[in-house]
Amino acid sequence: MRDKEHVFNVARIVADTYQAGNDVAVVVSAQGDTTDTLVAKAAEISARPNPREMDVLLSSGEQISIALLAMALQELGCPAISLTGWQAGYETNRAYSKARIKNLNTERIESEIARKKVVVVAGFQGINVNDDITTFGRGGSDTSAVAIAAAMKADRCQIYTDVDGIYTADPRIVPNAKRLELISFDEMLELASLGAKVLNNRSVELAKKYGVTLEVLSSLDPKPGTIVREVLNMNEGMLIKGAAKDEKVAAVTITDVPDVPGINFKIFSLMAQNKINVDIILQASGRGGNMDVIFTVPQGDAETVREILEENLPLFQGSSVSIDTTLAKVSIVGAGMQSHPGVAAQMFEALSDANINIRMVSTSEIKISVLVAKEDADRALVAIHNAFDELPS
Amino acid sequence: MRDKEHVFNVARIVADTYQAGNDVAVVVSAQGDTTDTLVAKAAEISARPNPREMDVLLSSGEQISIALLAMALQELGCPAISLTGWQAGYETNRAYSKARIKNLNTERIESEIARKKVVVVAGFQGINVNDDITTFGRGGSDTSAVAIAAAMKADRCQIYTDVDGIYTADPRIVPNAKRLELISFDEMLELASLGAKVLNNRSVELAKKYGVTLEVLSSLDPKPGTIVREVLNMNEGMLIKGAAKDEKVAAVTITDVPDVPGINFKIFSLMAQNKINVDIILQASGRGGNMDVIFTVPQGDAETVREILEENLPLFQGSSVSIDTTLAKVSIVGAGMQSHPGVAAQMFEALSDANINIRMVSTSEIKISVLVAKEDADRALVAIHNAFDELPS
Repeated sequence: MRDKEHVFNVARIVADTYQAGNDVAVVVSAQGDTTDTLVAKAAEISARPNPREMDVLLSSGEQISIALLAMALQELGCPAISLTGWQAGYETNRAYSKARIKNLNTERIESEIARKKVVVVAGFQGINVNDDITTFGRGGSDTSAVAIAAAMKADRCQIYTDVDGIYTADPRIVPNAKRLELISFDEMLELASLGAKVLNNRSVELAKKYGVTLEVLSSLDPKPGTIVREVLNMNEGMLIKGAAKDEKVAAVTITDVPDVPGINFKIFSLMAQNKINVDIILQASGRGGNMDVIFTVPQGDAETVREILEENLPLFQGSSVSIDTTLAKVSIVGAGMQSHPGVAAQMFEALSDANINIRMVSTSEIKISVLVAKEDADRALVAIHNAFDELPS
Repeated sequence: MRDKEHVFNVARIVADTYQAGNDVAVVVSAQGDTTDTLVAKAAEISARPNPREMDVLLSSGEQISIALLAMALQELGCPAISLTGWQAGYETNRAYSKARIKNLNTERIESEIARKKVVVVAGFQGINVNDDITTFGRGGSDTSAVAIAAAMKADRCQIYTDVDGIYTADPRIVPNAKRLELISFDEMLELASLGAKVLNNRSVELAKKYGVTLEVLSSLDPKPGTIVREVLNMNEGMLIKGAAKDEKVAAVTITDVPDVPGINFKIFSLMAQNKINVDIILQASGRGGNMDVIFTVPQGDAETVREILEENLPLFQGSSVSIDTTLAKVSIVGAGMQSHPGVAAQMFEALSDANINIRMVSTSEIKISVLVAKEDADRALVAIHNAFDELPS
């Protein structure tokens, strides 16, 4: 909610939903650049501001939004009441700035809804067992919303964004990308983790866990959006749901590791202990019983990974560690991929036709990812999107 | 706390106090124009924003301040923790925007102080019995501070402001006004109610009730300020503590009221029922057994008073109501005034010498007030201040 117009625009959508006879709880984020302004204020004070105080600071942004939206709803004749995270009953663990919801005590929300009020809840925030304010990290307001929908067994959790749904690819890169009417949780999770930034993964995971039907739609253009839900009667045919790219990957190579059991375990348990998210893994058997182990990690973790691995090189008897940050990951997502072996071949053909070199490949039940040079990423996205665009779905 | 420099300035004062071996709780207001910005945001949404939501909105201002000050203290190596009003234990009544503290549950504050932390508390805010956020109105942060000092039996409650103490008159009007070293609660209350805006009355009343010694001093120039406390061994001599003016008064005249018992009661109980603060009262016996009743009220209440009185004129058989808003009240405050009958005379002489006409007079144990024309108010203030400046005190 950037400004007054936007606040009233949201208020009108909420009031319409309420006046159609629905019980409504609405979760809001901070206005426009409020969060950035607060982060800048903290940066002026300290290079490494205390995480607890950072959460006290940032949570004020949503507190401002809920008050303004509640006022706007009342102005439209719609009874409304704002609730901060702690008032709404979000109980979290102690992890400041990336807290996880442990429990949502819906007593207050329920009593306000029973009084026929629209409940306006501050997203992104809760309190821990010490009554200290915690925040959920980027995209945390979606998670707040899904948590309410789950706890209240809501018919639907509508996520209003600045786009009108989930697309088969980023329309800024692939102009003929299509809006989806329906996508499954798993497909959405793959797309989100691949760099489609509409919904954050934690909120989709939560929705999947509690069977909450999501709808992604635009607050500026209120037509039906994309439904995200469990899709049980999967069509037998191939259903490519989308293509996405992620430029924030780094490929890590450890050379000359002995090709013996247990080495992999040592490397990847080390990554897990350090909470590094490992994605594509490739083992190339090498010269004389040794091999190279190659895997990708988020680019932001690359230097940490280098330090950890170099410190522990003797542990897995490798000879060197190298990091390549010139690559991007381009993927297609869709159910039924495993049972259509031609998909990977078709993807490779499209890339070959576009003269794009593939560096690594990874496949799962519902996705195929390739690593290509960063400068080829956009062309690769267009090529594979358009290749599958021709497919019957 | 306007900006980064000001935050660190306050942090340094607090850190010094802590490092001198004191347990410290510090109460902060919103930064600079934050409150005005938030009020403007609400005004964009609604001409009469909901008071509960207004308190949710405004309380975010102090929440921002406490986080930033706690960060700055930590940056200076001083262990600190911020607490919002509800975290700090301020329990209030339900009166949004002008809530009164019913109880301060100091459990959290005490436990943090026991851990040798500086507690940074959001002033101006608490929660009511429904866990809804309330605010205390203008000057509310002083009240928050006095409440902590009272509950924790603090040695002193220092109020840092943009002036370096309490003056015998507003130095912008009376250039030779002097800074006081000591003033009693009662004198401070009279001065404050007369328009000296350094401390709000509620905080002084609370300090008087719990015997909390206040010190008013400047955050920019940290030398000893003015002490406000119970002064028991009152000097026998006359002690003029200050002169002040209040331009926001209206004189109300009800003409031709019968001079019979009970009429006054009817008029002033009507004012009390409507929560109108009546100050100076003057009854001029009139023609033929009738009289005019004249009294002053805050100028902001003038139109309400006119409506109430005109509606009820038959009740006290008056013939008309007139309101005069061209007057100002100028007063001197000091203990021992009653026992020095020459004070009023000297005040009148000073005003006469300055050719200023007196419209009404009121005296109490520790103050003498006169009503003069608004355009004469500044000259009157200088004249009476300087007249008493000559007195031995």
